[in-house]
Amino acid sequence: MSLHSIKVFSPATVANIVCGFDVLGFALSTPVDELTVSISNTKGVTIVNEDEFNLPTTAEKNVCGGALLAMLDEVKDVAGFHIISKKNIMPGSGIGSSAASAAGAVIAANTLLGNIFSKEDLVRFAMNGEKVASGVKHADNIAPAIYGGVTLIRSIHPLDIVCLDAPELHVTIVHPQIEIRTADARQILKQNVLLKDAIKQWGNIAGLVAGFLQKDYDLIGRSLEDVIIEPVRSMLIPGFDEVKQQCKEAGALGGGISGSGPSIFMLSKNKHAAQAIEKAMQSVYDKIGLAYHTHVTTINTEGVKIVMDDKR
Amino acid sequence: MSLHSIKVFSPATVANIVCGFDVLGFALSTPVDELTVSISNTKGVTIVNEDEFNLPTTAEKNVCGGALLAMLDEVKDVAGFHIISKKNIMPGSGIGSSAASAAGAVIAANTLLGNIFSKEDLVRFAMNGEKVASGVKHADNIAPAIYGGVTLIRSIHPLDIVCLDAPELHVTIVHPQIEIRTADARQILKQNVLLKDAIKQWGNIAGLVAGFLQKDYDLIGRSLEDVIIEPVRSMLIPGFDEVKQQCKEAGALGGGISGSGPSIFMLSKNKHAAQAIEKAMQSVYDKIGLAYHTHVTTINTEGVKIVMDDKR
Repeated sequence: MSLHSIKVFSPATVANIVCGFDVLGFALSTPVDELTVSISNTKGVTIVNEDEFNLPTTAEKNVCGGALLAMLDEVKDVAGFHIISKKNIMPGSGIGSSAASAAGAVIAANTLLGNIFSKEDLVRFAMNGEKVASGVKHADNIAPAIYGGVTLIRSIHPLDIVCLDAPELHVTIVHPQIEIRTADARQILKQNVLLKDAIKQWGNIAGLVAGFLQKDYDLIGRSLEDVIIEPVRSMLIPGFDEVKQQCKEAGALGGGISGSGPSIFMLSKNKHAAQAIEKAMQSVYDKIGLAYHTHVTTINTEGVKIVMDDKR
Repeated sequence: MSLHSIKVFSPATVANIVCGFDVLGFALSTPVDELTVSISNTKGVTIVNEDEFNLPTTAEKNVCGGALLAMLDEVKDVAGFHIISKKNIMPGSGIGSSAASAAGAVIAANTLLGNIFSKEDLVRFAMNGEKVASGVKHADNIAPAIYGGVTLIRSIHPLDIVCLDAPELHVTIVHPQIEIRTADARQILKQNVLLKDAIKQWGNIAGLVAGFLQKDYDLIGRSLEDVIIEPVRSMLIPGFDEVKQQCKEAGALGGGISGSGPSIFMLSKNKHAAQAIEKAMQSVYDKIGLAYHTHVTTINTEGVKIVMDDKR
């Protein structure tokens, strides 16, 4: 095994951003996973987990493994990678836990290889990790984890990622401790939507993109409306409507289901509001009697961060 | 009748902009309608047409009339308006002929009243004119005519109009001389769309908005794709696919059906390309043997323009 190892912090992400199902996402400053990757003389990908989540260590069944095996297919001269994974982002929470693993792994590995791959290549490899997790190659968590900030995936085939400059935004997340599998959350969606609802939705996504780029907080707030996915998926999340209402009263610009849930995110203009929103979330789930975690954080403009480059 | 009269040039507009069905539109520098409006002691709206289009002069059946009657409902002290209308934008061409009448009328009338109404009010009144023309209150031609530039109608109820700053863009229009009624063009649309198509569409509209605001011509071009409306409506327009292909080869960023057709518009970066695109359009319709008009113009950032304010 090589003595050169790269350690990264790989961020949680919020996919969809309410009206942008499957095309929008942003990265969070916290929580982050810690991944340490080195080049290995052993063929394939070996994985050591240093957390309590008991994720598979067989490369083909592991998100980091799936991503790095895809990368190895396009690399000569390198037999394999060794990964030490310490996850802080709970799998199944809806804030891009699998994407953080995949994105962190490919960025660390690419650094070891002397950055021979573009960010777009890395998204492509990391999507193979997402496929291991959910059966679907989607990029709306991967892209913001790799690029940072708010990203638009205009198209998957061909891959077309657009970085959207956004104003300072604070994010409050609540993760009620129930389980929703991404595959299940996809399955309950109807395959057909009303044209009139689709028109409302694309009015909102256009408004949200304009709100970010024009730094118009009110427009961001007005555009955070989902008439297609949320009415269906929110039924899987106890207390959803009340959380949303209480958070808006506490100063949230708006928000909704993070990814396929069960986490709920809310955007706000400042830390004070973000903390008031956390209290509102806590009070709803305390009343319901459901266990939860909260995060008070910001949009992370940097994406995966290299925190140690150890050449020995 | 008052001696105070206002003359305006009211622009043609392109609604939808390919992927933004019912929510996006932009104003054109040419052609423009000429409208002269004065306050009248006769109750209601009197209309004189100075063109060959034989449009109705009964206020309730006339687009300007419908718009100004809606305005009069909210005005005290004024009995009526008198309008002299000289249209250069051919009705039924798909470049917002009715919206030009309605928008020009309300801006001229509001100027006579000392600008007591907001632009949003004016859109509301003008939408009553659109209802006279097509039976539907839509704002995607009205809003760009009144505000100028590229506009997003994020929502109709409540009305939420967002101006989008765009880079310099040249526009080439071809109007093949066939008739498509807006009401018919609406009727052939399916009421349901596939969720996967809707996702492609909102990826594109998000890309188009980002392209305008980030002044990214390539992104604008890549985003000018419509997987929902164009495949249905383009069948009503002879030569559509060939026009599109030839125009792209001639240097167009992209384009498609203007409003509900039959006009086709193409965007380009400069006048040279806009003229080459015109030639491509001409050659397709010359070959087919269908009569047509073309316009080579630019996006009009000003909207309705007051060209004479005559107080006598």
